Amino acid sequence: MNGAESLVRTLVGAGVEVCFTNPGTSEMHFVAALDKVEGMRAILGLFEGAVTGMADGYGRMAEKPAATLLHLGPGLANGLANLHNARRAATPIVNIVGDHATYHLQYDAPLASDLMGFARPVSGWLQSSTSAHTVAADGARAVQASLQSPGQIATLLLPADTAWNEAERPAPALPRPVAQPVAQEAVDQVAAALGNGKKTAILVRGAGLKEQGLVAAGRIAAKTGARIMCDTFAPRLQRGAGRVVVERIPYFAEQILEFLAGTEQLILVGAKPPVSFFAYPGKPSWCTPEDCRIIHLAHPHEDGTGALEAVASVIGAPKEPVNIAPFERPELPTGKLNAFTAGQVIGHFLPENSIISDEAATSGMGVNFYTTNAAPHDHLSLTGGAIGQGLPLATGAAVACPDRKVVCPHGDGGAMYTLQALWTQAREKLDVTTVIFANRSYAILNVELMRVGAENPGPKALSMLDLHNPELNWVHLAQGMGVEASRAETIEDFIDQFGAAMKVRGPRLIEVMI
Amino acid sequence: MNGAESLVRTLVGAGVEVCFTNPGTSEMHFVAALDKVEGMRAILGLFEGAVTGMADGYGRMAEKPAATLLHLGPGLANGLANLHNARRAATPIVNIVGDHATYHLQYDAPLASDLMGFARPVSGWLQSSTSAHTVAADGARAVQASLQSPGQIATLLLPADTAWNEAERPAPALPRPVAQPVAQEAVDQVAAALGNGKKTAILVRGAGLKEQGLVAAGRIAAKTGARIMCDTFAPRLQRGAGRVVVERIPYFAEQILEFLAGTEQLILVGAKPPVSFFAYPGKPSWCTPEDCRIIHLAHPHEDGTGALEAVASVIGAPKEPVNIAPFERPELPTGKLNAFTAGQVIGHFLPENSIISDEAATSGMGVNFYTTNAAPHDHLSLTGGAIGQGLPLATGAAVACPDRKVVCPHGDGGAMYTLQALWTQAREKLDVTTVIFANRSYAILNVELMRVGAENPGPKALSMLDLHNPELNWVHLAQGMGVEASRAETIEDFIDQFGAAMKVRGPRLIEVMI
Repeated sequence: MNGAESLVRTLVGAGVEVCFTNPGTSEMHFVAALDKVEGMRAILGLFEGAVTGMADGYGRMAEKPAATLLHLGPGLANGLANLHNARRAATPIVNIVGDHATYHLQYDAPLASDLMGFARPVSGWLQSSTSAHTVAADGARAVQASLQSPGQIATLLLPADTAWNEAERPAPALPRPVAQPVAQEAVDQVAAALGNGKKTAILVRGAGLKEQGLVAAGRIAAKTGARIMCDTFAPRLQRGAGRVVVERIPYFAEQILEFLAGTEQLILVGAKPPVSFFAYPGKPSWCTPEDCRIIHLAHPHEDGTGALEAVASVIGAPKEPVNIAPFERPELPTGKLNAFTAGQVIGHFLPENSIISDEAATSGMGVNFYTTNAAPHDHLSLTGGAIGQGLPLATGAAVACPDRKVVCPHGDGGAMYTLQALWTQAREKLDVTTVIFANRSYAILNVELMRVGAENPGPKALSMLDLHNPELNWVHLAQGMGVEASRAETIEDFIDQFGAAMKVRGPRLIEVMI
Repeated sequence: MNGAESLVRTLVGAGVEVCFTNPGTSEMHFVAALDKVEGMRAILGLFEGAVTGMADGYGRMAEKPAATLLHLGPGLANGLANLHNARRAATPIVNIVGDHATYHLQYDAPLASDLMGFARPVSGWLQSSTSAHTVAADGARAVQASLQSPGQIATLLLPADTAWNEAERPAPALPRPVAQPVAQEAVDQVAAALGNGKKTAILVRGAGLKEQGLVAAGRIAAKTGARIMCDTFAPRLQRGAGRVVVERIPYFAEQILEFLAGTEQLILVGAKPPVSFFAYPGKPSWCTPEDCRIIHLAHPHEDGTGALEAVASVIGAPKEPVNIAPFERPELPTGKLNAFTAGQVIGHFLPENSIISDEAATSGMGVNFYTTNAAPHDHLSLTGGAIGQGLPLATGAAVACPDRKVVCPHGDGGAMYTLQALWTQAREKLDVTTVIFANRSYAILNVELMRVGAENPGPKALSMLDLHNPELNWVHLAQGMGVEASRAETIEDFIDQFGAAMKVRGPRLIEVMI
């Protein structure tokens, strides 16, 4: 076997079942090896930003890495923005990036670039294989590195001759890293703090936001009255009916200050203290009250769920958590179609155990509000602020969870970044319903323009935030990529179209005119 | 005035007239300043890969930089692939990349990243402004750096507080760098070599491929019989009727070897010796004959045109160049619609002084063949191999040259990467006709799969190169972004549609079913 085949066999042996690809010439041996090895599904994306976003969505839901297959420096570069989001989400991903043959690099051919330089800012682990004899072992290390708790991006550069030269055998899988348990001292410190009568908030991120961790947090709240919070943009949150309600930290600095006002103790579980997303003149970046004590229960690489359970046990918390969301299916609205009423419709029809890939931005409040007590679901958010995550993330989540409906509420501006993901949804017949909120603008920037103190914006400035001229037509765009699509002009339209989409399988796009 | 306004005034004062933008919150002061300063046109792109490709097309035609305005690390990252192409084209570009306020970086907010790390691989000049008091001077240096011969990418990071804090004044423009004249010794050495009776080829890249340099090269050829060549992917070549014919080096290594066989002397003018685009098992990377003498007449930063003229003078070349292309308008074809007959139609209708932005890839041979003796035009090619250049490059070229028709023959696979450029064409009413060669595949990879020795490709491998399932519909995609579009199923269709597009102004897309 050649190096490429030894690598594919190694990846499959280490549990990697899916490869999201956009290959070129230098990856042809890897592509050919996909047919020689059982067990690796290959999913093509028509742009690398879609490919890496799919790997992120897959990894967040499957809790193990997909591989990506990318073409040299520019192929990786096209995928970097969604790798930035994945890095912020701590998603395990194994990037395989083809490179020129080792002996070819000296000629500085047109596609040569500083590939290591492109990869470094997003990669927790980065290696270039130098020989077909070692590439299998490098691949095994990459998988293990990607699973280093809480998860990270491992990038393996694969020079073409390393892929095509003769290799011996695949490498055995390396042990899957496990999250470190927290020290008993940390548990005891938090237990003591919870007993001191001060106003306490527990900020959770990572695996602790799944049902098991939330139950433990809700039991602590039952005993102590502590508030349970998550970041504005948590990678994955299990919520809806039957789940412990988590308060989401608001977006703007002054809202965060108000939200945290009076908090005397902030207990961190896999999270960092909240800061403002951007800086604004005269507004604070640091949003925790000055006199608030910050206590680390679990660092991001540690076992936050276990730590919450240990604390619950030490303080003698009751078995039953508080603040469990009751099931209250929202009524179907009447009246005007807007982001709020559309969110109400989504909450009404949302199937049990669905997944929401949320990049609705300014249009997202309705969805968020009306799904709090809707059927239980997983919520995935835009972790790194690099817009253009939602469509590919939904695509990858649907690959990871073929039996679950994926709903993707998305702003029209951000969706244009990686619209190519729709083609993959059609090709793979994935069960994703995309809802485009067509407000024809980078709406958030109209807010931000004022907030940063840029007074009296002129017509040129305003035109940079406006997408009316010409108007995008998302029905045409989706149809151009083979996805069935429709436009909702009224609330009745949207009820009909979204309701119908929830009853069938397969990709569907609805453009909501707001 | 604030730092942003001092920077915009400085850029305008230094001759930067266009800013291709995709801004976010951290760039709002720069955006606001665009209204306070006369003379800077702001052109919005819906994805940064489109934005940077537009800046490349503008710079190649205008021979001075446009500015880009990009949003933090992910915004820059999305533009890197086309910046890679621009780096290979030696196009002057000034990137303005917004960053978090200097004091905000310590908080590692979601959008924070290693921005310098992202920028370094493509930037010939890279600086982060640290104060509103110095940003104007930094901007003046960036413009000057971008024009350092033969042209390069200058990236200026603009922390938000550097933009919003108070500044004094704009900075004066710095002198525009000029290309170094070559030393007389280099001229004399080449003149002597041209008289030694050996078989000689002159390989030209850069400004020497415009009319003036080509005349000098053609005069040298008239005196000595030397062949005049350009790279497979020259950034810009003036060709067509009335221009000295330049032999384009073929793509594959074995073709290059045959093409150069017998060449005893290779004279380089702004070029490097030809190498193969990719490495292939058992095939050479270095493509110049082993016993061929390589002589540098002009390095890329030197004045190649002046050097060619000096050589022509020293050897007493005649006033008239040889190998001037006669005007031979191709007949309109009949029969089957394919890439060859479509190329013939393009050659027939091509208006005088048009610009071809060529990313036709495997479908490009017909266009190339049938435009050799067509009306004189500028030809722009995919310099760095990062596909997805053609549509934005055409867009930027049309901004630089509003009175010239731009024709963009493009493969369907590559066009999907940066299709967002079509929206900007519609918004700015640019005179671009895009011709999508719809072969529903990454056709080159079917060739490459065999060439790299990946034998007996299986169904999975072949499916990674195939874009049939589902079929893209470029008419829908273009209409979704406001561009008038049609599909040509027959040669008669294409004659009608392309002929009509050449008679009117404004954006138009034709999907050619081949």
